[in-house]
Amino acid sequence: MAGTGVDGYFGVRREHMRYLTGFEIAENEVMSAGDSGKFLVTGEGLHVLADSRYLLQAGRQAPDATPFECYYALPERWPDLVRAAGLRRVSIEAAFVSHATFERLGAAAPDVELVPVEGWLETDRQMKEPAELKRVAAACAVADRALASLLPAIRAGVTEAELALDLEWRIRTGGAEALAFDVACLAGPEAALPHGSPGDRPVVGGAVLLFDFGAQVAGYRSDMTRTLFVGEPDERDLEVYGVVAAAQNAVFAALADAVAPSARRRGTPRPSGPAMDALARSVIEADGRWPVYGHGLGHGIGIATHELPGLGRRSPDAPLPSPTVFSVEPGIYLEGEMGVRIEDLLLLDAEAGRTELLTRFPRGPVVVGV
Amino acid sequence: MAGTGVDGYFGVRREHMRYLTGFEIAENEVMSAGDSGKFLVTGEGLHVLADSRYLLQAGRQAPDATPFECYYALPERWPDLVRAAGLRRVSIEAAFVSHATFERLGAAAPDVELVPVEGWLETDRQMKEPAELKRVAAACAVADRALASLLPAIRAGVTEAELALDLEWRIRTGGAEALAFDVACLAGPEAALPHGSPGDRPVVGGAVLLFDFGAQVAGYRSDMTRTLFVGEPDERDLEVYGVVAAAQNAVFAALADAVAPSARRRGTPRPSGPAMDALARSVIEADGRWPVYGHGLGHGIGIATHELPGLGRRSPDAPLPSPTVFSVEPGIYLEGEMGVRIEDLLLLDAEAGRTELLTRFPRGPVVVGV
Repeated sequence: MAGTGVDGYFGVRREHMRYLTGFEIAENEVMSAGDSGKFLVTGEGLHVLADSRYLLQAGRQAPDATPFECYYALPERWPDLVRAAGLRRVSIEAAFVSHATFERLGAAAPDVELVPVEGWLETDRQMKEPAELKRVAAACAVADRALASLLPAIRAGVTEAELALDLEWRIRTGGAEALAFDVACLAGPEAALPHGSPGDRPVVGGAVLLFDFGAQVAGYRSDMTRTLFVGEPDERDLEVYGVVAAAQNAVFAALADAVAPSARRRGTPRPSGPAMDALARSVIEADGRWPVYGHGLGHGIGIATHELPGLGRRSPDAPLPSPTVFSVEPGIYLEGEMGVRIEDLLLLDAEAGRTELLTRFPRGPVVVGV
Repeated sequence: MAGTGVDGYFGVRREHMRYLTGFEIAENEVMSAGDSGKFLVTGEGLHVLADSRYLLQAGRQAPDATPFECYYALPERWPDLVRAAGLRRVSIEAAFVSHATFERLGAAAPDVELVPVEGWLETDRQMKEPAELKRVAAACAVADRALASLLPAIRAGVTEAELALDLEWRIRTGGAEALAFDVACLAGPEAALPHGSPGDRPVVGGAVLLFDFGAQVAGYRSDMTRTLFVGEPDERDLEVYGVVAAAQNAVFAALADAVAPSARRRGTPRPSGPAMDALARSVIEADGRWPVYGHGLGHGIGIATHELPGLGRRSPDAPLPSPTVFSVEPGIYLEGEMGVRIEDLLLLDAEAGRTELLTRFPRGPVVVGV
């Protein structure tokens, strides 16, 4: 807040509370948690709002924060909160505070100016501490092991939903505290949907099977996609796989070069997210046989599955931050036929002059069920 | 919208999209879904926003809605959306649209007036159609069966987290598409936390074990709490249980009387949520030995776990709606020692002159692990 003319920051995003204090409200609890988990940062420290259901948890998880008891009564309690802290000009997390709440806070303490701000904590969160990177790597390892242990269970006739549940079980009994997000398991033509849900469709021999999933360890997440071949692979499908892998490899090579000590000596700026997206696209376009993916190349990851930096066409055209970790996930989707996506998490550490794949599951074609 | 002077309604709450169209974005996906799932209701119909990842799903789940493709570009696309529909005055779901988005929409089409509104769909959703009640009842039945089948697995030494995962597995392989919320399983003194999380604490003989959990079937949820006795119950604990059960029974009896045909003939108005909460409290206070619960007596349930009507001290003091379904969940919590909560879903149908417990698991004390 230094130099911005505000003396407080009021936030409501659950990831920010987790990031600043360790206090965590589950994603599926946010709607029922009332004001619990909202917070106010001042020059003196951090106040965490919690009602009686959450006070003990907040005290355990965020021992350094000052609890402020509040049960569905934020506007009513707002004057007490900001006046006790002596605030005059409070920045408000405007991308997450509802319009109704913003208006009510303003009316409740008209002498305290509210300044809508966006992206402050998101920008901080993209650069990762060593302890954060360790947790992301641990989440990757749990996911890698879970998929490896699932392979023998994959055979024609098993349904997507059964495999998704089986994989989830392996993740949650294999070292993760939770899934990063619901497991996607998509067979054959369904793999052409960049965002399908597993259903009662059975796995079919001679077709692809796509898994997109992640684990959460100590609050940090992983995200990976593998497209497996069930039974004897179709020649065309293998070629599609090869082009996607080549696109991903081109990005890995470019990033390794960009942070190598030699590049650093030359003073080359780090590439941007959109530049890496364009590079992956160019590989698929140069091949020319199949359409380029419609989504972005990748996204940062940490407490949230999707965070900064963005590696899409519309992401900010600025050098990638460092140290950071993000997904690289090009794909080719042939509607009604099949799809291939390969997704790995890459650690980028320009200061150390290196990149590292945190996803360790084989990236080459894997054939199962024969 | 009739009679309110607006010609459109712009909403972003996932439960509302599900309620109006059947299109559903998972709770843990909302943060990554971008603009997908937002919607605009006009006199002509409903427009659903979706990006390429969600267009197919939206088409399948909401065939009557008009898709409007939008990838993280709402303010930019807003003029097209509202002008194509010929709107001049659009109501905005102000409790869920962020302040930043509200401001951007206003700036993007200054000739289209934005009217913040709250609670419109929430009020509709509390009255349930027969098909909705059937789904809630089906979710209750899955949860009942799951807990009944878990009983033999409960014994001293098993941890809360193990039992929570086991129960989840039984729910999700026993007819539910998902949990309603994360399973709470709290042993002994932890049961005194109205909102604890299961941990590595082992179940201990001679103590209580509290389960608070629910299932989701066809988009609708259940919610139930049972406090079991592991091994020989302590006399005091049984007495606490008896007082909580008496408080719950008093509410059931009062509601059955209030909607009985005789009451209807007398024209007695239906009781309010706060009146039922006060009744349950009065039973515990009249006994006088233990403190009254600090949370509310109950909440409506449907697409969301917590919805209207509220049965708390601060809930609106108006007659309960009908037909509706809500939880009745009094409790007594002895900090550091034990806690008892009993929670059932009650269907209230004043037009049919009846109430019905949708939760069927025994309400009396259940002793396990001996």
